[in-house]
Amino acid sequence: MPEPVIIALDAMGGDHGPEVVIPGADIALSRRPDTHFKLFGDEAAISPILKAHPRVAAACEVVHTDIVVRMDDKPSQALRRGRRRSSMWLALEAVKNGEAHVAVSAGNTGALMAMARFSLRTLAGIDRPAIAAIWPTLRGESIVLDVGATIGADAQQLVDCALMGEAMARALFGLDRPTVGLLNIGVEEIKGLEDVRAAHQLLRDSHLPMDYKGFVEGDDLGRGSVDVVVTEGFAGNIALKTAEGTAQQIAQYLKNAMNRTLLARIGYLLASGAFKALKEKMDPRRSNGGVFLGLNGIVIKSHGGTDAEGFASAVGLGYEMVRNGLLEKIVADLGDYHRERRSPASRGAGSVAS
Amino acid sequence: MPEPVIIALDAMGGDHGPEVVIPGADIALSRRPDTHFKLFGDEAAISPILKAHPRVAAACEVVHTDIVVRMDDKPSQALRRGRRRSSMWLALEAVKNGEAHVAVSAGNTGALMAMARFSLRTLAGIDRPAIAAIWPTLRGESIVLDVGATIGADAQQLVDCALMGEAMARALFGLDRPTVGLLNIGVEEIKGLEDVRAAHQLLRDSHLPMDYKGFVEGDDLGRGSVDVVVTEGFAGNIALKTAEGTAQQIAQYLKNAMNRTLLARIGYLLASGAFKALKEKMDPRRSNGGVFLGLNGIVIKSHGGTDAEGFASAVGLGYEMVRNGLLEKIVADLGDYHRERRSPASRGAGSVAS
Repeated sequence: MPEPVIIALDAMGGDHGPEVVIPGADIALSRRPDTHFKLFGDEAAISPILKAHPRVAAACEVVHTDIVVRMDDKPSQALRRGRRRSSMWLALEAVKNGEAHVAVSAGNTGALMAMARFSLRTLAGIDRPAIAAIWPTLRGESIVLDVGATIGADAQQLVDCALMGEAMARALFGLDRPTVGLLNIGVEEIKGLEDVRAAHQLLRDSHLPMDYKGFVEGDDLGRGSVDVVVTEGFAGNIALKTAEGTAQQIAQYLKNAMNRTLLARIGYLLASGAFKALKEKMDPRRSNGGVFLGLNGIVIKSHGGTDAEGFASAVGLGYEMVRNGLLEKIVADLGDYHRERRSPASRGAGSVAS
Repeated sequence: MPEPVIIALDAMGGDHGPEVVIPGADIALSRRPDTHFKLFGDEAAISPILKAHPRVAAACEVVHTDIVVRMDDKPSQALRRGRRRSSMWLALEAVKNGEAHVAVSAGNTGALMAMARFSLRTLAGIDRPAIAAIWPTLRGESIVLDVGATIGADAQQLVDCALMGEAMARALFGLDRPTVGLLNIGVEEIKGLEDVRAAHQLLRDSHLPMDYKGFVEGDDLGRGSVDVVVTEGFAGNIALKTAEGTAQQIAQYLKNAMNRTLLARIGYLLASGAFKALKEKMDPRRSNGGVFLGLNGIVIKSHGGTDAEGFASAVGLGYEMVRNGLLEKIVADLGDYHRERRSPASRGAGSVAS
């Protein structure tokens, strides 16, 4: 049996803190018993909950701190109050110091990203880390990045996202050559932003063994047309939230329709198995967990408002990223890419006016 | 009875040309009999279809041209080949010359926008026209703009969109004071693009009687949190297509679920009325039609691939925009706004560093 995966948990993060983190860790542990936890947070709050979850208690150690980054702290506030002392910071430091393989937090995204950059630092060649989301599609799942960190990303940052997202698809989906698309718009006159076009040229002319499929549009996301969709963070975040909102909207329509008449209610009861399957399919908790890419370490951001089931998904995602060597794959890819960029041969063939 | 609304139709636009345009006009006419059409296109293609739709034949005149803008023409090609001669151009010119109140085309968006700008010109004070979409929400409908024309819109262009969208909401929904929101992202650290923040300040500090509600996020779209959502065209187009894709995806999930077991199929049959209502609710044809705003005339863009029912929605939208004085409302609002900007009092109070 291989070494256990050691997961650093910010026990105080999220809307519910340890009340969700510890039961979530328990569910995750039942699925992947070769997991060990480091729990950072307020011992007084953690201990009673840990007592109710003896399996977690047996597979973790608790590191006490009573400093907590609040959900409404601005990144600058969080850094000022919480650096070197908060549960969020200590979880990240555990990854930095090699005491944990991955950190998982349901704390606020801005603070977590600021602290992660400060603590773990970005990988060589990476300006700005990205947040990758797992997107449920008709074909299964895709990776979409960035969904909120690289606002106004330039062409090179989009290419970095493509490299990192492709590595993640190999790690998460076990694909040899995941397909990669660049999110753009279909109006002919002015096809997308300058930087998106420049990134398209860089990716098309690259000598890397990436299966780059060119532009995709918003409706390709749900269709799963490619395994990895690359986008700048502003549009990516809006796409993600729009999809979540549309799913909620249709679920509400469906609920209203099924309550309208007696016949509909009877039909609903008969088809309840099917509705249950649909509900599971649409359950946002299943794909909970954004992966911070481009740092010297893996960080998973769970939704702040999720429950134990959702937090368990985020923990499971962290586990898979470690077991499948996400960081090593990204580092190798970025190395290859930067070697290629430096080589005179490729410079002649692959360079474009940006 | 008031004067009829005269609608110029690009009979050759879209994937199916007159085979969809004329039956669509027929449906529209049955709903709003005080409509008159000017049909621009190839008489040989139009005549036989018109024979099968005597109601349209009695309420229209045909203007022959055999020049057609193709669905894959680039805007520059379309202008070169189709200016002054194509069915698309002639429909726009009819609006310009006061022979029609509104033009409707299912032709390609880029060409239609380029020709509309060339023929109708933008309103005083407007740099770039926008495309407004009708978005079905849990509360009813909202207006979202821009969905693809103002790529990389700056703060002033976003404010223009807010003004025009607000006027459209008054015209279309009959609201006295529609609510307006600015689409942004929720990640705390770097809340959105510079221009979005600058537009937020301009709108907040404006002395106009606009009910500006501040930032909204992607999931507010389906929720219908505000009547008008303002966004730059790249993110807006991606949001629109992502929502369409998500709706298709869930419809497919639902279909699969309802076919899984015999019990589910029986349930589906019993609840078929409810499913029919749901299907109607989600029917993209109902909200077909983008409105070009910011031109000296109203232009409606129908989806190229829609059927007669969808085209009829676009025609009906054009009718409503005319009957409710959309253009007059926009011109009045822009006049007020620019007067305010020029006045020294507001300059002192409302100006911001952009």
